[in-house]
Amino acid sequence: MNKNKVHIFDTTLRDGEQVPGCKLNTKEKIELALVLENLGVDIIEAGFPISSPGDFESVTEISKIIKNASICGLSRAVQKDIETAAAALKHAKHPRIHTGIGTSDIHIKGKFNSTREDILQRAIQCVKWAKNFVDDVEFYAEDAGRTDNDYLASVVESVIKAGATVVNIPDTTGYCLPHQYGEKIAYLINHVPNIDKAIISCHCHNDLGLATANSIAGVIAGARQIECTINGLGERAGNTSLEEVVMIIKQHKDLGFYTNINSKQLNPMSRLVSDTMRMPVQPNKAIVGANAFSHSSGIHQDGFLKSAITYEIINPTEVGADTSKIVLTARSGRSALAFRLKNLGYDFNRNEVDNLYEKFLQIADAKKEVLDEDLHAMAKVFETIEA
Amino acid sequence: MNKNKVHIFDTTLRDGEQVPGCKLNTKEKIELALVLENLGVDIIEAGFPISSPGDFESVTEISKIIKNASICGLSRAVQKDIETAAAALKHAKHPRIHTGIGTSDIHIKGKFNSTREDILQRAIQCVKWAKNFVDDVEFYAEDAGRTDNDYLASVVESVIKAGATVVNIPDTTGYCLPHQYGEKIAYLINHVPNIDKAIISCHCHNDLGLATANSIAGVIAGARQIECTINGLGERAGNTSLEEVVMIIKQHKDLGFYTNINSKQLNPMSRLVSDTMRMPVQPNKAIVGANAFSHSSGIHQDGFLKSAITYEIINPTEVGADTSKIVLTARSGRSALAFRLKNLGYDFNRNEVDNLYEKFLQIADAKKEVLDEDLHAMAKVFETIEA
Repeated sequence: MNKNKVHIFDTTLRDGEQVPGCKLNTKEKIELALVLENLGVDIIEAGFPISSPGDFESVTEISKIIKNASICGLSRAVQKDIETAAAALKHAKHPRIHTGIGTSDIHIKGKFNSTREDILQRAIQCVKWAKNFVDDVEFYAEDAGRTDNDYLASVVESVIKAGATVVNIPDTTGYCLPHQYGEKIAYLINHVPNIDKAIISCHCHNDLGLATANSIAGVIAGARQIECTINGLGERAGNTSLEEVVMIIKQHKDLGFYTNINSKQLNPMSRLVSDTMRMPVQPNKAIVGANAFSHSSGIHQDGFLKSAITYEIINPTEVGADTSKIVLTARSGRSALAFRLKNLGYDFNRNEVDNLYEKFLQIADAKKEVLDEDLHAMAKVFETIEA
Repeated sequence: MNKNKVHIFDTTLRDGEQVPGCKLNTKEKIELALVLENLGVDIIEAGFPISSPGDFESVTEISKIIKNASICGLSRAVQKDIETAAAALKHAKHPRIHTGIGTSDIHIKGKFNSTREDILQRAIQCVKWAKNFVDDVEFYAEDAGRTDNDYLASVVESVIKAGATVVNIPDTTGYCLPHQYGEKIAYLINHVPNIDKAIISCHCHNDLGLATANSIAGVIAGARQIECTINGLGERAGNTSLEEVVMIIKQHKDLGFYTNINSKQLNPMSRLVSDTMRMPVQPNKAIVGANAFSHSSGIHQDGFLKSAITYEIINPTEVGADTSKIVLTARSGRSALAFRLKNLGYDFNRNEVDNLYEKFLQIADAKKEVLDEDLHAMAKVFETIEA
């Protein structure tokens, strides 16, 4: 295994699909799985087979059709869940069972009314059950973000000993700060003797807007898998955005990591998921929002037109977005106005643009955006007066 | 000054308003300014007065009406900009001029075709000009995120000497990783001899999804002002989300900071800005998205119903949101079904719920969400059969 590769585990079809309104039928799930494989994700979490007959069928059909990516099915630390997941994954070329249990005291007491020792035994047991069916078993320590590090380390050591190939350290409630999540991963790397026998995975939630930063902090500390979704869909405020972590790793070569993702497909993929799941992406969403590469203030436009890198760290074509936009509003300056007029075929000199700019501002103060038709009208009037 | 207070500098009306489609007229700007003051923001950046006659008027009128918050006007390092900002702020009880210049080599060469020494002199000059009009002058070192730390430190020292009360360290292009941005602020704290005479401010952009994390890293390193917008609006992928940084500071008492924001107004404020600026907020937006407090998977619902804190780190009423929602989909379990049936007035025992659950899953597999009307129909059929 290349130590610099960060595995991308996409859970759009599981953690994303469980969101209110996002449920997909089997046909839609298969279509998205094929596009996800083509995007280059390493693991597709296809569903939670015990949850419903429909989801069992979806995981079964996706397992038949996907050849390169691993197919993962979710289960609780319950024998019947695991057997059902294994049955759904029967045809998968690279099957993975994802099983686990809550490890924070809040979950141990509040959800299971149990003890740390009992939960540890159930954790070991579920991995052993899963190992009866597949080689590739991922264990999740639910609410690891609020789990005592020392206890977490003993759980991680035990499940790796039981055969877990991947150990997922979820910040289930999205509570951790990046330095805290990074320290948690570093603690495990430094305190679990058999840690080199498994890949540590980051599964972060966005309740405080920190899922992306936490995942990157985890990778810097030694994790090598990120669980994420297209457009950051998922329970509550969602999961880590695939497009954000992928582009951070790509643009920050100083980190020394890489992923298998074909970044040029990120914007088409985002639109497909948004349309299929009917979940809008806000215009100011990083990488895939409609305005992510729009420049509208005069200061920015002037700089951008002189040298794109003054205000742009990603070339939009690299992520399959339209070219950068120079939008004209009352905050735009003369250079943006001159640029847009020139694009429309007008050849005004500097003095003429200065004169036009006053008229432009009047229109712009009265409108949200000055469009090509406004510019044409403005230019025609100006040419008539001058002539 | 209390060293644990983080000042909230809202730039919804300036960096947010310059976004394509978001432009506001003077009346709308005044309305939002009043609500922002009521929310508890310390500084309202009201506009960029030189940019248009309409924006000059907006800043003028906001200056007349706002009494508690400071009112800030933006300007370039240009005498006429600063004079115009000062004129617009004439009636403000607490006026602040925000002026500055690009300090990265990319900006110095690509935008100004200049030298570091020349830019340093222009930085000092613009602060001196502004000081002729107001006591409270904030200097911005544009593209500080990509500025050499040693040069940045000399700029910061010089502008503080010239009278800047606040120094803004913008990550203009949203490029920094949290640890890098934190280290930059720490470098300034440790290398600028007169740093205690000014407040360091974080102004982060969200191009890689890291604006919130970067701002918090900056505060941990010693900054005491965050520049942010409602819903994270702003150029391209937007600015730091006010609601996210405020709730991180509130929920992470371990950090030891506080703000003046009344968090109960965050959701109403978010809706008002979204409606006024016609900029949708995606359902999976942290704190203010429609799904931010919705629970839909069976595992989460079961835990949440046993103890809310298993899956919720913020009580929705604390941020003025509706109560948590238990949404029924094909990923929901028996406990969520029982809970929703009980809310509708049905009193089924455990066996009955088990029987109903099979029927529920059939409906749920065929629909995106199971609604109250579906539950009523299901329960009636069941009661008829049993009777």
